[in-house]
Amino acid sequence: MEKQKEGKRNASVENEALGEKAMFACGSQSIKFPVPVFIRESACVVGKKEGEGPLGELFDVVGEDDLFGCNTWEEAESSLQRDALHLAVQKAGLHTTDIRYMFAGDLLGQGIATSFGLSQFDKPLFGLYGACSTCGLSLSLGAMTICGGFAEYVACVTSSHFASAEKEFRFPLGYGNQRPLSATWTVTGSGAFVLSNSGEEAKAAITGITPGKIVDFGLKDSMNMGACMAPAAADTVYQNLKDFGRRPEDYDRIITGDLGKVGQRALLDLLLERDVDIAKQHMDCGIEIYDGEKQDTHAGGSGCGCSAVVLSAYVLQKIAEGTWKRVLFVPTGALLSKTSFNEGQNVPGIAHGVVLEHL
Amino acid sequence: MEKQKEGKRNASVENEALGEKAMFACGSQSIKFPVPVFIRESACVVGKKEGEGPLGELFDVVGEDDLFGCNTWEEAESSLQRDALHLAVQKAGLHTTDIRYMFAGDLLGQGIATSFGLSQFDKPLFGLYGACSTCGLSLSLGAMTICGGFAEYVACVTSSHFASAEKEFRFPLGYGNQRPLSATWTVTGSGAFVLSNSGEEAKAAITGITPGKIVDFGLKDSMNMGACMAPAAADTVYQNLKDFGRRPEDYDRIITGDLGKVGQRALLDLLLERDVDIAKQHMDCGIEIYDGEKQDTHAGGSGCGCSAVVLSAYVLQKIAEGTWKRVLFVPTGALLSKTSFNEGQNVPGIAHGVVLEHL
Repeated sequence: MEKQKEGKRNASVENEALGEKAMFACGSQSIKFPVPVFIRESACVVGKKEGEGPLGELFDVVGEDDLFGCNTWEEAESSLQRDALHLAVQKAGLHTTDIRYMFAGDLLGQGIATSFGLSQFDKPLFGLYGACSTCGLSLSLGAMTICGGFAEYVACVTSSHFASAEKEFRFPLGYGNQRPLSATWTVTGSGAFVLSNSGEEAKAAITGITPGKIVDFGLKDSMNMGACMAPAAADTVYQNLKDFGRRPEDYDRIITGDLGKVGQRALLDLLLERDVDIAKQHMDCGIEIYDGEKQDTHAGGSGCGCSAVVLSAYVLQKIAEGTWKRVLFVPTGALLSKTSFNEGQNVPGIAHGVVLEHL
Repeated sequence: MEKQKEGKRNASVENEALGEKAMFACGSQSIKFPVPVFIRESACVVGKKEGEGPLGELFDVVGEDDLFGCNTWEEAESSLQRDALHLAVQKAGLHTTDIRYMFAGDLLGQGIATSFGLSQFDKPLFGLYGACSTCGLSLSLGAMTICGGFAEYVACVTSSHFASAEKEFRFPLGYGNQRPLSATWTVTGSGAFVLSNSGEEAKAAITGITPGKIVDFGLKDSMNMGACMAPAAADTVYQNLKDFGRRPEDYDRIITGDLGKVGQRALLDLLLERDVDIAKQHMDCGIEIYDGEKQDTHAGGSGCGCSAVVLSAYVLQKIAEGTWKRVLFVPTGALLSKTSFNEGQNVPGIAHGVVLEHL
């Protein structure tokens, strides 16, 4: 610490450094918040198919038509973000002017669903890209911002849309391409979360995070993204347990974003190889959101919107009512683009862990 | 800080809020760091054309061939990020294992230059997208992370590549399309910065930030991005001066990212309309990096890499030696994709301000 105090400065820089080094770093990769950050409210808007799934009754708004009154799929996705955030702010009893910063992203190239969805809020935007892990990324950075004393309220918003994602990553819907059983179905939906430094009327607390690394097992199949993402999910879950000194049973649920059925098996196997058994705690938002057999969604749901809407509609409810006391929420992302795929690159994964607790 | 240490938990959550509300919020949009965060070191790698420009002698590494020994433009861009970060860490006298988190992004769809460039560092990644403003975005979040006590060292990395950007936003080079004089030339380069909570041997201090809003003046010309971004730059500069209670002359330089000559004029005019004259302080990285007439780069340089490499090679040097005591660094981004452009959407802008000071 002595060395930190040496520096000389000009007038406006105070001649003093941070009191302690990375006080809130936890283990090699995680952060333990000294006081919790609160998820005050959330809201979600989903498409027709999601409304017909097993969680259909829980979503705040279900669209009748996936264009949501817009002219293009991309505009429709923007409207999802706009509507979800407006609703979350309203449910929180706040005004949009109360939000200091927005942390948001989506799956589209250059994040256009976010840029065009959130511009009218007239608030500073931290644009993010973490593929389908973006919900975890936004909650992590939002919580760090609140905990650091930089804002009183921030908004974390993510979205995906089946039609815009198919066009972005695979083929436009009109092409009618076939999908193997390992493929997932991109969720049409957006979840918005209002984070606050006050626990008053909050739904859950964020007590820690485990930001994820890029994990590349050399897989290349963009039609089996669950398998591509499972190694990253395993890495983040393992690291979270290690950093916080916890066992799987210290969590009521360990919830991944969109591994689907194929990825779930890979995740459980990979962790078992490291002597960690999360079979009892594991749940996957992609598996929960659709009835795979009836809805022909194959391995499950995917997309930034998948974990965001399931967190908003289902997981937060379970935590708020106390059914689950502590949850590890781990949205999972596959890091590819049409270009990287066509150039023969691997599909690495990334997963960001967020510890959510009952108040 | 006392309050942060008290805490009782239900099981583990302290049902108590942060001692003070957003202590370090400054004005309506900015953050004033209670103690500065330091840019300990930086490094930059650029392409052949950048090496031939007026700042050529200052860059750490100049490539002989813009493929940098890779098979594709995208891989070449990834290699720029990898090399810049390795070099920055080495120049800082650190090891890559000292870096706790990486904040990085690029212009390509789904940020693939970043994903494939930084995976081997095996550190948690916060993936960002702010178009050409991403350098400001990464420095802002990195500084918040250090100041919040969440890490001792973080890395902030951004890149762009002329050939991968032309392919991503306009046409592959082989198409040989014509460029109007208002167009800018995407810089091939990457800048990497190592941020620290210790001022020892540091090059500059980050004392505050002004995260930017999306500003949309309804412009649609992707061949005149300077004009599209100027309103956002004007908004961020104006807000920074207001939030910190400063006048333009309180800065030795106000440095935008890549407005180019057309955007510079728009910026100065827009601020004059609000009675702010920054003509004496203004500098634009896009104008500095090329000799527009000799190098046929039209309005100037652009891309995430533009502001990053000029900051690393030139601006930080001026601050370190004390020629400039305080600088407002404002990377500027145009929020469009090929899809949004083809669908007739506007090209909104965003600009993130970072206050840099001499130690």
